[in-house]
Amino acid sequence: MSQYQHIKQKAYEANMQLPKLGLVLFTFGNVSAADHDLGVFAIKPSGVPYEELSPEKMVIVDFDGNTVEGSHRPSSDTKTHAVLYKNWPKIGGIVHTHSTYATAWAQSQRCIPIFGTTHADHLTADIPCAPPMSDEMIQGDYEYQTGFQIIDHFTELGLSYEEVEMVLVGNHAPFTWGKTADKAVYNSAVLESVAQMALLTEQINANAPRLKDALIKKHFERKHGPDSYYGQ
Amino acid sequence: MSQYQHIKQKAYEANMQLPKLGLVLFTFGNVSAADHDLGVFAIKPSGVPYEELSPEKMVIVDFDGNTVEGSHRPSSDTKTHAVLYKNWPKIGGIVHTHSTYATAWAQSQRCIPIFGTTHADHLTADIPCAPPMSDEMIQGDYEYQTGFQIIDHFTELGLSYEEVEMVLVGNHAPFTWGKTADKAVYNSAVLESVAQMALLTEQINANAPRLKDALIKKHFERKHGPDSYYGQ
Amino acid sequence: MSQYQHIKQKAYEANMQLPKLGLVLFTFGNVSAADHDLGVFAIKPSGVPYEELSPEKMVIVDFDGNTVEGSHRPSSDTKTHAVLYKNWPKIGGIVHTHSTYATAWAQSQRCIPIFGTTHADHLTADIPCAPPMSDEMIQGDYEYQTGFQIIDHFTELGLSYEEVEMVLVGNHAPFTWGKTADKAVYNSAVLESVAQMALLTEQINANAPRLKDALIKKHFERKHGPDSYYGQ
Amino acid sequence: MSQYQHIKQKAYEANMQLPKLGLVLFTFGNVSAADHDLGVFAIKPSGVPYEELSPEKMVIVDFDGNTVEGSHRPSSDTKTHAVLYKNWPKIGGIVHTHSTYATAWAQSQRCIPIFGTTHADHLTADIPCAPPMSDEMIQGDYEYQTGFQIIDHFTELGLSYEEVEMVLVGNHAPFTWGKTADKAVYNSAVLESVAQMALLTEQINANAPRLKDALIKKHFERKHGPDSYYGQ
Repeated sequence: MSQYQHIKQKAYEANMQLPKLGLVLFTFGNVSAADHDLGVFAIKPSGVPYEELSPEKMVIVDFDGNTVEGSHRPSSDTKTHAVLYKNWPKIGGIVHTHSTYATAWAQSQRCIPIFGTTHADHLTADIPCAPPMSDEMIQGDYEYQTGFQIIDHFTELGLSYEEVEMVLVGNHAPFTWGKTADKAVYNSAVLESVAQMALLTEQINANAPRLKDALIKKHFERKHGPDSYYGQ
Repeated sequence: MSQYQHIKQKAYEANMQLPKLGLVLFTFGNVSAADHDLGVFAIKPSGVPYEELSPEKMVIVDFDGNTVEGSHRPSSDTKTHAVLYKNWPKIGGIVHTHSTYATAWAQSQRCIPIFGTTHADHLTADIPCAPPMSDEMIQGDYEYQTGFQIIDHFTELGLSYEEVEMVLVGNHAPFTWGKTADKAVYNSAVLESVAQMALLTEQINANAPRLKDALIKKHFERKHGPDSYYGQ
Repeated sequence: MSQYQHIKQKAYEANMQLPKLGLVLFTFGNVSAADHDLGVFAIKPSGVPYEELSPEKMVIVDFDGNTVEGSHRPSSDTKTHAVLYKNWPKIGGIVHTHSTYATAWAQSQRCIPIFGTTHADHLTADIPCAPPMSDEMIQGDYEYQTGFQIIDHFTELGLSYEEVEMVLVGNHAPFTWGKTADKAVYNSAVLESVAQMALLTEQINANAPRLKDALIKKHFERKHGPDSYYGQ
Repeated sequence: MSQYQHIKQKAYEANMQLPKLGLVLFTFGNVSAADHDLGVFAIKPSGVPYEELSPEKMVIVDFDGNTVEGSHRPSSDTKTHAVLYKNWPKIGGIVHTHSTYATAWAQSQRCIPIFGTTHADHLTADIPCAPPMSDEMIQGDYEYQTGFQIIDHFTELGLSYEEVEMVLVGNHAPFTWGKTADKAVYNSAVLESVAQMALLTEQINANAPRLKDALIKKHFERKHGPDSYYGQ
């Protein structure tokens, strides 16, 4: 049995949650699960329908994007995953989808304002939208550069990838991550819900104010602080 | 067997309706069922997925928010439930969700105008939106204060909690209640539907008028008055 | 066996389609099926959940609204059905729902413009919206007057109930009808779809033109004329 | 066994995907599958509900629209399919639906701007919207002329039907095609998703820019070029 069976299994199970959560049409999404000690991750093979996936079909790739094990080609977004794992060592899973509302925000090239506690329960910043890449980056190694575009945007905004586990890539679509692949999938579903609510909020009240600072702070502490007690 | 088995069972069954009605993502909601004679209520445990719930996992809490029985932590919104039960003695069940449209109205900090008979069949006032709490209340015992924020807003508007069984908490999300936990869940579903229709109504006609007074009165009497005869 | 068994069965089956088609929440809808020779119709009992319905529970009512057979109270909208059957002799079935998009148009008090062939395949006029009733009508026999409000509006606009099998009642919700109860249910689903598309059309292009006259005429003839050949 | 069994089977299976993908209400859609060597295509019979379809009920029609085999009438849109097969020899399947968002764009008579990579992964032009036909064309052989309206619009815009496998017909609804019937169905689902995202994008940011040229080029090459490697 493969020494990577544990992450193949995790990646498989996490990928299978995407269609159940309504986050993907056909194969428009992928999840990976990493083992930082082994320096590799398991990722969905390219173009294989969800109903034909199995743990064995997951592809093992190292953090430079080289395939280590597997008979299928890895997802075309593999290099973006590799860059994020290499630079952000505490990430155990990454998800990319083209979910409807999050992708619409990415296409509109706006960050998602923090309008309420649903958002604040998960992150206390606006959900960032990295600008589209420069022509040079696009013409180069595109998926590789997508990873750096995300990391550079976090650096520019002074955001921690451990606190803000999601990003919109302008003109493209969302990426989410987390300590595990399951958490990354959870974050994708939360992002989609928050993205829908934020659009509706602006439609109901074009001048809806951002969440007040005291509430942002309270919700952050309720979930993340030393005295955290959150759970519904 | 627990002397609270009857409310554990009711709370369990009512909680299980939330995902079926499409009102919750993951664990973003909770239902409680009270016994005013015993001075306690049964509420969903914190962070337990719906598919793992059972009547036995419900937590018994008194009206001051103290856990009386149960091996799990109660929902983080427990104190809000406790305050409402203590102050509004005819409530037998309470529901909190982050359902999409109702939450968007709460985030937009607008009450929901009464536009039609779907709304009027259930309540004949606009659905109130309590303003976000003051910084002092937020920094204090937040969930406890959420209960008072709701009660104070009803007092200010002169609303009866027996006639208006739902509220939006600004920046946050809805709470609904009723004589039973089942009725409170029913009210959550009605609120979500009315919230969606109200947004669509304004999108179709930005100057849509509120329901005329004669219709408000008629629908109120049709359902609630001494000669009530309503039922579809 | 009841001499009305045939219409009880039809009304039962047609009612059961409403939740399957996503047109009702809880019991917010009702279907009836008439036998004009016998001068009666079978209608859903009041307040009974769909999962507890059976043909035997349907209530038989005459065209003046009097219950002829049945142990349950008929739907609270029964008198509206009775008035329509009495005045429009070629109707065999009537449906009332609070379906989301059609109800939003009714609340906005606008008729639905004919924007495309989906609409024109079914009717070649805008979908009419009867204005809210006068205070006098509301204070009188409300459900009875709702029937006349619909008929009067058709008379005023010069519409034929055989060509236009649906109406919005301002501030309230839609009614549809047809030669059979099944056709009336079909029309309710078509109305909901057309109502959603019309709102989206205006959102995409605030100046979207109504369907051109030549297309209205063509689609009318394609489906209804002597040389009709329509079917997808 | 019919010499056309292979395309009957393909057309049947592709038709059955439409309700599963949420692209049709009742019978508002049809799929055909062609065999260019035999000069015929199999198409859904007219007015038959999806649950009653079978491969045997598919109708075989030649590229002039004449029925060759089958006991049912072919779909009323058959001549549109025939014209496209006759003029565009590399098409193996065609789909027509009235899916909600694509139809709303068709009704609004706007082409769908290319806002993001979800769109660019499939085609690198705006999704064209053919204008409504002239009165003369409508009064003539309407479904036949619909085919020419589509072809003429592609010629006018200089579009290749092999690169752009979808079109909106103004005032009407979408048509999609592909090398196979399955691919044509896939394109219908992609179109519906892209159409929804484009509306949402404009609602979030009324000034959302079209996808930048370098990204259009990159995504085109990633999927279609000699060095293509795409797949999620």
